[in-house]
Amino acid sequence: MIIIMRPQVGDEEIDTVARKLDQLGMRPHISRGVERTIIGVIGDERRLEVEQLEALPGVERVLPVLKPYKIVSREWQPQDTVIDVAGVPIGGRQIQVIAGPCSVESAEQMEAAAAAVAAAGCRLMRGGAFKPRTSPYTFQGLGVEGLRLLVEAARAHGLPVVTELMDARDLDVFLEHGVDVIQIGTRNMQNFTLLKEVGRIDRPVILKRGLSATVSEWLMAAEYIAAAGNHNIIFCERGVRTFENAYRNMLDVTAVPVLKRETHLPVIVDPSHAGGKAWMVPALARAAVAAGADGLLVEVHPRPAEAWSDADQALSPEEMARLMQELAPIAEAVGRSL
Amino acid sequence: MIIIMRPQVGDEEIDTVARKLDQLGMRPHISRGVERTIIGVIGDERRLEVEQLEALPGVERVLPVLKPYKIVSREWQPQDTVIDVAGVPIGGRQIQVIAGPCSVESAEQMEAAAAAVAAAGCRLMRGGAFKPRTSPYTFQGLGVEGLRLLVEAARAHGLPVVTELMDARDLDVFLEHGVDVIQIGTRNMQNFTLLKEVGRIDRPVILKRGLSATVSEWLMAAEYIAAAGNHNIIFCERGVRTFENAYRNMLDVTAVPVLKRETHLPVIVDPSHAGGKAWMVPALARAAVAAGADGLLVEVHPRPAEAWSDADQALSPEEMARLMQELAPIAEAVGRSL
Amino acid sequence: MIIIMRPQVGDEEIDTVARKLDQLGMRPHISRGVERTIIGVIGDERRLEVEQLEALPGVERVLPVLKPYKIVSREWQPQDTVIDVAGVPIGGRQIQVIAGPCSVESAEQMEAAAAAVAAAGCRLMRGGAFKPRTSPYTFQGLGVEGLRLLVEAARAHGLPVVTELMDARDLDVFLEHGVDVIQIGTRNMQNFTLLKEVGRIDRPVILKRGLSATVSEWLMAAEYIAAAGNHNIIFCERGVRTFENAYRNMLDVTAVPVLKRETHLPVIVDPSHAGGKAWMVPALARAAVAAGADGLLVEVHPRPAEAWSDADQALSPEEMARLMQELAPIAEAVGRSL
Amino acid sequence: MIIIMRPQVGDEEIDTVARKLDQLGMRPHISRGVERTIIGVIGDERRLEVEQLEALPGVERVLPVLKPYKIVSREWQPQDTVIDVAGVPIGGRQIQVIAGPCSVESAEQMEAAAAAVAAAGCRLMRGGAFKPRTSPYTFQGLGVEGLRLLVEAARAHGLPVVTELMDARDLDVFLEHGVDVIQIGTRNMQNFTLLKEVGRIDRPVILKRGLSATVSEWLMAAEYIAAAGNHNIIFCERGVRTFENAYRNMLDVTAVPVLKRETHLPVIVDPSHAGGKAWMVPALARAAVAAGADGLLVEVHPRPAEAWSDADQALSPEEMARLMQELAPIAEAVGRSL
Repeated sequence: MIIIMRPQVGDEEIDTVARKLDQLGMRPHISRGVERTIIGVIGDERRLEVEQLEALPGVERVLPVLKPYKIVSREWQPQDTVIDVAGVPIGGRQIQVIAGPCSVESAEQMEAAAAAVAAAGCRLMRGGAFKPRTSPYTFQGLGVEGLRLLVEAARAHGLPVVTELMDARDLDVFLEHGVDVIQIGTRNMQNFTLLKEVGRIDRPVILKRGLSATVSEWLMAAEYIAAAGNHNIIFCERGVRTFENAYRNMLDVTAVPVLKRETHLPVIVDPSHAGGKAWMVPALARAAVAAGADGLLVEVHPRPAEAWSDADQALSPEEMARLMQELAPIAEAVGRSL
Repeated sequence: MIIIMRPQVGDEEIDTVARKLDQLGMRPHISRGVERTIIGVIGDERRLEVEQLEALPGVERVLPVLKPYKIVSREWQPQDTVIDVAGVPIGGRQIQVIAGPCSVESAEQMEAAAAAVAAAGCRLMRGGAFKPRTSPYTFQGLGVEGLRLLVEAARAHGLPVVTELMDARDLDVFLEHGVDVIQIGTRNMQNFTLLKEVGRIDRPVILKRGLSATVSEWLMAAEYIAAAGNHNIIFCERGVRTFENAYRNMLDVTAVPVLKRETHLPVIVDPSHAGGKAWMVPALARAAVAAGADGLLVEVHPRPAEAWSDADQALSPEEMARLMQELAPIAEAVGRSL
Repeated sequence: MIIIMRPQVGDEEIDTVARKLDQLGMRPHISRGVERTIIGVIGDERRLEVEQLEALPGVERVLPVLKPYKIVSREWQPQDTVIDVAGVPIGGRQIQVIAGPCSVESAEQMEAAAAAVAAAGCRLMRGGAFKPRTSPYTFQGLGVEGLRLLVEAARAHGLPVVTELMDARDLDVFLEHGVDVIQIGTRNMQNFTLLKEVGRIDRPVILKRGLSATVSEWLMAAEYIAAAGNHNIIFCERGVRTFENAYRNMLDVTAVPVLKRETHLPVIVDPSHAGGKAWMVPALARAAVAAGADGLLVEVHPRPAEAWSDADQALSPEEMARLMQELAPIAEAVGRSL
Repeated sequence: MIIIMRPQVGDEEIDTVARKLDQLGMRPHISRGVERTIIGVIGDERRLEVEQLEALPGVERVLPVLKPYKIVSREWQPQDTVIDVAGVPIGGRQIQVIAGPCSVESAEQMEAAAAAVAAAGCRLMRGGAFKPRTSPYTFQGLGVEGLRLLVEAARAHGLPVVTELMDARDLDVFLEHGVDVIQIGTRNMQNFTLLKEVGRIDRPVILKRGLSATVSEWLMAAEYIAAAGNHNIIFCERGVRTFENAYRNMLDVTAVPVLKRETHLPVIVDPSHAGGKAWMVPALARAAVAAGADGLLVEVHPRPAEAWSDADQALSPEEMARLMQELAPIAEAVGRSL
């Protein structure tokens, strides 16, 4: 950590900083420059808080030198983590496409969806049983019954299951029903209660990026899970909130190469929630794979116009099958398989 | 709801929309213009979802006419709601300042803080026992013990207590300890599990705005609490996330008059988290009161430089007392008292 | 245009709106609903301003039905525009990569740069002679001398030239020196003076997106150029400003398919300014091509570490050559050639 | 400037940095820590560019220590600058309200506007003759004729005149017509051509903040004007672009105290363009004064509903007079006069 003092500070302010560092178990390294005095902090800066030092008299700014995350960082583990989900590897050479409907609606819908997902060549299935909805007056998901329908349909087609957990109290029922990957949604990226809970199990977790979370905050949210013991974490970029209102969110494709450099964990992309319209999904999915994503999370519905939620962003089975064909040569162009 | 069709759509697409509306229990009102056909929807649009209609062939855009929130809206209740917190009214002519430290640290710190808060003329006390922290490696709050220390110190000075709830499972312990106002933090504004839980009790709730939540989403989050039965909701603007990095967040002062127009519920402002630096607090607090806020939420610490969290944004007891003096004439200038 | 009236407005307010529309040469179509009265506007809404109608008593909101742009829209011209730049087609099946250094520095640097650009297989060259710099104390470009060096080097390798115009008074000198494509930079996207001037000539124009310009504003900026007579416009997405500070800008890859749907004009992407670091360029360039971009604008410097500006984002000649090889199979995967 | 090296860099990378600094006329100060080597730069860092150093092998990040602006900074001049505009001081104890219509429309409108502005007690007048409009199809201003009408009406009521310059070629005509303060609009904040031109005269300049300009970029834009010789610069905060769409822009009230701390120059606020609706103006104007603004820029129109542009955000003469009465006690509460 580097402490930049204000111009014209006296020895008293510098001594106060030095004493504070001493109290905190660190050592100061003082450089008196022409325009500013700068104090380097010697010791493990991850134990310090920038604010504690910025509150001291005469301090202008405090600059951390180290990254605040550790277990999830590439400095800690240089080689890629490949997560095994019931035999399907995520994070390796093969790109995985996780597909399925926004909401679980009925046994018929789920069977049709699972059949379509498998037929298109996808190896994992998604579906929402507990739904985070902006309005309390809209469909909130089928709950535990939805969980049962999802798992049943997916198992019939040999597909491991991904679904979202919103309440820590539901974790046991998720495990009992055999959910293979637990999704932490955008609105819960910094629900630290939930992060700590999924950190206590070893089931893989998809951690979606918060609506306006920085890459650093996102890595720190993953560090919460990792620090609690679960290292099976998959990042999922799903578009962020900006000033633009021509599309629902802005897919941050730059986050893909940046995360791949910062962390050893897999990174997937959700092109459906990013653009918010089915017609945008193929272009965004291709861009994600071209940028180096390890997988995709795509909304598919047997009959999109009849979906109970997000009807305008789901692909039809035919569109999904076509997308997989489009993605294959892109995957190959970047040295991957689909 | 108004449905705008694409240019050159045929009768088939228009019929499909009309049939879908019929299925959903609505009636269409079709206007064929020169450049576009427009379909008005007759019936209770709050039961519809824009996405379901935008997914239909030939539909270009769907525009809601009504606001999505109801119980919290001024259309539903024109007169201001005044919430009684243990005898202290929030939302009336008197402006309330809620003050206290970011984190509960010790009995001594809390006693000194409560004494300072009361001496400055504030009528409610805040303090954090369960802390949402970006890093898993920093201080996470004293938990239940912190709750006890907070209530004890505040009671000794006759101050009702405000503190943040992060986990629905802790709600009972909050009520047992006599927490007077439950705060839902920024990161949990759309933690719908938590919103529904605090909706089941009648204890007043401070609902902080999400980091990048629109005013509409914020009102909908309050509607979750209200729809579950608890109408004692206080909005708290605390700065939003933007491109600017010269300060921690950007205080959205415009949200104050806009909310006061849209909702009958009280609106307060947190100038401490907005700017992120103690020296910015007085200017932002004055601006908030001048803009029409019903109250403030301010961080005060007996010795800011020694605070365990957010040290750089807490006021000292002297600064707090001075701020109250500065605010009095502003309150008077807008026809309020402090 | 659709005018939504407030709840409980009387006949007087409705009559005022009707009279105003009459004055403006439009006709009203009034629908009295249960909760709201809605007034449809019959006539050419592009001649109206939303604000004029929103200022009327009793009006809640005014919603435009038509897009505000015309000449640049796909509704006006369904088939793709292919722009010929000295024999190089932009907007057709072939993807064009425009490459070169941020700043023109010397004859030697430009000769080396042009040789590298041509050797990598790029067909156009870029270079900055007039530089928009955040600080008045940094290098501002070589000016007219830079223009001369750029054209000379590019001509020697048969490459048409792209360079940025900042001042309308320099337009003649740009034309005299034979600049083939005039670039309007990010900071000048809404410099309407400049847009009108380049609208008066027929030289192709690259219109970079403003730092926080919406897609709609960007199309309207192009409409300024088109309305003045010049239809040879190329859109260039170069990253937008958001809350994220892990990279310089956020590449808005979604803008590519959205623009391709809204306009018949070519769309290219600048991956260098988007990420701001050379190591991010290949991933972003691949994503842009996969998303459907018609071309790229890439910074290359003979010796990046010695560049006078943006040293950290320029590719070396070797990196540029490798990028072209990486892009070829991606272009093919989307049915294009490089 | 501080250079943070990557973990495990060798002597070679460190030597390369040291040699580069030497070439640039600086000296390195190398500290080898446990986790990172850090190199301090000794010499005038304003002559360096971060990018040149970040491009070197082994460099992780480069952190500037000094502010990039100089003439406009409080470090350069601690006491407040008070700018004299034809006898009206801006930046002193008295708060100045500059009022007038968005567009100059006719002699009658301007006479009525000037009478209203003077009657309300404002001491300066604004009006737009050259208008930056998003659409080429809407009213673009009366141009030179508008300039003449504005000055004539204002002079008749003893009001100095503020108006926007969009094209450097119009500067002479602005001076000939006796414009007292030249406004550089939001879209031109980084039109460096224009900034340099107004830097060559001594007429006061109002520099509006760019739509998504950081405070630092804004100060640098002012530094362009100052470096060219004109130190009579007034900053004008007018709302920035964010994700929120409930109002046109978000007034950044925090920028007021931050600018007042960073610069000695006056800071005013435009509440009309910030909110975009007349009913929001009083609350925002009060907040601005309470936060420490030196003045306001307010839109007033004799008959707002008939204004040719921005009709929904102009105050009527009665509303303007009432606003001045509301502001007086706020000004007094912060130790100022109106």
